[in-house]
Amino acid sequence: MRKNYLLTPGPTPLPPEVRAAMARPIIHHRTPQFQAMLKEASEGLKYVFQTKNDVFILTSSGTGAMEAAVVNILSPQDTALVVQAGKFGERWTEICKSYGISTEVLDVEWGQAVKPAELEKRLKANPKIKAVFTTLCETSTGVVSDIASCGRLIKDTPAVLVVDAISGLGAIDLKTDDWSCDIVVSGSQKGLMLPPGLGFLSLSPKAAKLIENSKSPRYYFDLKKVKKAFDKIDTPFTPAITLVVALNEALKMIKQDGLEVVFARHRKLAEATRAAVKALGLELFAPLDGSDVVTAVKVPAGLDGEKLVKTMRDTYGVTIAGGQEELKGKIFRFAHMGFIEEFDIITGISCLEKVLTQMGYKFQMGTGVKAAEEIFLK
Amino acid sequence: MRKNYLLTPGPTPLPPEVRAAMARPIIHHRTPQFQAMLKEASEGLKYVFQTKNDVFILTSSGTGAMEAAVVNILSPQDTALVVQAGKFGERWTEICKSYGISTEVLDVEWGQAVKPAELEKRLKANPKIKAVFTTLCETSTGVVSDIASCGRLIKDTPAVLVVDAISGLGAIDLKTDDWSCDIVVSGSQKGLMLPPGLGFLSLSPKAAKLIENSKSPRYYFDLKKVKKAFDKIDTPFTPAITLVVALNEALKMIKQDGLEVVFARHRKLAEATRAAVKALGLELFAPLDGSDVVTAVKVPAGLDGEKLVKTMRDTYGVTIAGGQEELKGKIFRFAHMGFIEEFDIITGISCLEKVLTQMGYKFQMGTGVKAAEEIFLK
Repeated sequence: MRKNYLLTPGPTPLPPEVRAAMARPIIHHRTPQFQAMLKEASEGLKYVFQTKNDVFILTSSGTGAMEAAVVNILSPQDTALVVQAGKFGERWTEICKSYGISTEVLDVEWGQAVKPAELEKRLKANPKIKAVFTTLCETSTGVVSDIASCGRLIKDTPAVLVVDAISGLGAIDLKTDDWSCDIVVSGSQKGLMLPPGLGFLSLSPKAAKLIENSKSPRYYFDLKKVKKAFDKIDTPFTPAITLVVALNEALKMIKQDGLEVVFARHRKLAEATRAAVKALGLELFAPLDGSDVVTAVKVPAGLDGEKLVKTMRDTYGVTIAGGQEELKGKIFRFAHMGFIEEFDIITGISCLEKVLTQMGYKFQMGTGVKAAEEIFLK
Repeated sequence: MRKNYLLTPGPTPLPPEVRAAMARPIIHHRTPQFQAMLKEASEGLKYVFQTKNDVFILTSSGTGAMEAAVVNILSPQDTALVVQAGKFGERWTEICKSYGISTEVLDVEWGQAVKPAELEKRLKANPKIKAVFTTLCETSTGVVSDIASCGRLIKDTPAVLVVDAISGLGAIDLKTDDWSCDIVVSGSQKGLMLPPGLGFLSLSPKAAKLIENSKSPRYYFDLKKVKKAFDKIDTPFTPAITLVVALNEALKMIKQDGLEVVFARHRKLAEATRAAVKALGLELFAPLDGSDVVTAVKVPAGLDGEKLVKTMRDTYGVTIAGGQEELKGKIFRFAHMGFIEEFDIITGISCLEKVLTQMGYKFQMGTGVKAAEEIFLK
């Protein structure tokens, strides 16, 4: 007998309603039955994205939606500015460079958020910047960016603001329209509580204009094709039907609670997690800019961080994430996103206490759980 | 109470084992647990593709895998030859043109298969042709191509043979290695009995060499990234975990029966369908080159073909497909692919008889079903 617990920043656990929806017999996608589902999904996504504009559904990972953003608004030799504060910021740079975009990088130390003043300086220094690529929550470091300030700086320039909200959408606040985000991309396996396999992309009128003129080659991710089909409540290619059906179940749950309640839940889960790891004497990797999506924690000196994560997962069934790239072995990432509630956090912290003790780390057992409980009691 | 029957050329009905697999709790993709699944899937796909080479799994529709084939082997201005005998042949042309490939088209009349002699003539006429794009089963017309002959013509030239086997793989024979197919692409929602959302791509050593030199821009579909990850039993981006888990269930079923038994079943289903519609006095759209995947049937003069399909679906729950593009309203397409057996065909033919009668078409009721039954009795 083994129970498994998933506390990773994507995929996140699936609600039973979502799992049951995926077990239904499949329906054909070119039918009024599926069109009704597509319409419902589209409306629900607008609610979660907090936008009046179209939100497109793509059959791909979130990275596919990121590529769609780049190739549809920029042409080779166009200038882009990428805010790069971790692995997923780097992905914007890699995609832009793959398509011959002249790519400026605003490098931010991993574990910190971009300072709006820095962004302003870079924007003023180069009026050729056509698009700014940012990350709502940098999953590799747990840091959340101040997208509202980025939007204020960019909205009156000719540039568009593109936000990777793959981690974070539906978990923390992102006011697509109010914050002047021109393109927001997301994925299914995070705050939306679905398996991976769907990408989402919202499009402002300012960004939509760029699509007409972009000369980057594209076919599968061509948003002109996507929009033409969407206007007829259709998709240009066979969509991941099962995931769209499941999406409606997840959206129903989010709408039932309401975004504010969902965000407040994530805030509390994050607060409890931070309090717990601090009570254990551990240090937060991003003490100032930590998100309510995933908490990155420094592995105590002398402890094998990879072994910690492996033992929690393979011996006790509690999956958290390790560090990526330069942070491999140096941090672990404890996610509190999606279909997660207080006793999942208690379970995760309890397992962390157990394995830390077994690895010889000195602290008083139960103090992490106690700190979390005290937050949840409030 | 409504029972639904799916007789469309993708998606095809899901076996209960596949549906149940998708309802399981999700697991994380960067774990030994998922790696074991990826490895199993990879081996199973090699069996179905009849290849010793790698078969990659992409998170996309089949069209995404088609794009991956084009952009990874060709550079702008390279010359490609597309065998175009329907809507999905046209898709190769569209993708190639989107990426600036100099694209020659071998136009074949819809409803017929390419004549190998024609292909040979075109290959000899232009030695610059670097890749030939073909379609195993052209879903829009029901026609199957002689890929073995295409392979024989191409294997000793510098060109590579690329086959769209989205419709057909796992339903009819396609000997990837023996027939010298350099790239075979497929999708999940046809012979593999899964929902849409996965693309597959096999790669010969001859095609693998081209990847090193292709200058087409790409990121999400970059097979160099995919191969590098696959060699470590991983994927470059978050895969559609649930569909990979389900894929293993479908592959298990196919392996249990064995490909020969699976192909024989499809042959019999197709034979029964053709016999039934002919017994009803209807005319096959592709009498000579009809596939064992989907049967295209001409709508009798004076009958509204779109209404026929709509009535079967919306009044009686039996979904078949209508004609696409220039064939809209002129044909209907009755699929017999995937998780389909004899009584599904009987159901579909019986419903067809009912609606034809209601629409005023004259024939003796029961003759279609009788003809199918006689085939199944053999």
